Amino acid sequence: MAARSDSIQALAEMLLSRELRLVTAESCTGGGVAAALTDMPGSSSWFECGFVTYSNEAKIRYLDVPLATIEQFGAVSEETVRAMVRGAVNNSLGDVAVAISGIAGPSGGSLEKPVGTVWFAWGSDEAQMTQCCQFQGDREAVREQAVTEAIQGLCRWLAS
Amino acid sequence: MAARSDSIQALAEMLLSRELRLVTAESCTGGGVAAALTDMPGSSSWFECGFVTYSNEAKIRYLDVPLATIEQFGAVSEETVRAMVRGAVNNSLGDVAVAISGIAGPSGGSLEKPVGTVWFAWGSDEAQMTQCCQFQGDREAVREQAVTEAIQGLCRWLAS
Repeated sequence: MAARSDSIQALAEMLLSRELRLVTAESCTGGGVAAALTDMPGSSSWFECGFVTYSNEAKIRYLDVPLATIEQFGAVSEETVRAMVRGAVNNSLGDVAVAISGIAGPSGGSLEKPVGTVWFAWGSDEAQMTQCCQFQGDREAVREQAVTEAIQGLCRWLAS
Repeated sequence: MAARSDSIQALAEMLLSRELRLVTAESCTGGGVAAALTDMPGSSSWFECGFVTYSNEAKIRYLDVPLATIEQFGAVSEETVRAMVRGAVNNSLGDVAVAISGIAGPSGGSLEKPVGTVWFAWGSDEAQMTQCCQFQGDREAVREQAVTEAIQGLCRWLAS
């Protein structure tokens, strides 16, 4: 986890220097991103809050994801993670958010979206960067890779 | 972590058999409880959502913790974790909640509340069980012990 903690250190420095506060909106990682970030001493200076929106109802209630978005594109989709980022920023005192929604398995996969499919969005209310990954391995491996990617993506978005 | 996964298995069975959905409200554990619980395949059947309310503002906004409670007793107090449980249940579709607020360190400790002090509450809107633990070790050790205690306390509360 040395690479991950280096990423978190870099992320913390970028957030602090730009006086930005971070919010997490997690589905398949279930709080793993928030837990990894707040492992760092002093993270309360830049970590605002986190939402673990496992159910669709929670995505709608706390993150204002439109029900129509979930119904049309699915909870694991670019449109949903974009909406999660916007909702996380708009419904909090945070400036920047990361959203993750995927299929960690072992069940829930389909031909179109097999187990290991994870959508990410990083950004603010105004602009988001998105990405879809197809991770290999079991539930734990998918979640671990998703946590790492979520954090590295935040660094890329802030550096861009 | 074998003991912890046994506890989560027992917790899942109790929640499922009683058709209860669980909500987490975490401060010092930073999402670690939600992450541990959702490591279990099928947890979406009983895990509703989680709040990582690191800032006081987030505790007030999402969990309806009265500002007066935080000002009078502190964020790390029995009164605050009780309010967090009530707010988590009332502001979600969950029936049962666990709340954790503590001082993971390395800074933030005081004579009265040294590093390692962690308050827990488990329960519903109507009734809560509370406990204060004084954990030893560094930030990571305090957080790990707090995650385990949070889960074991849920089992005790449901079995009581």
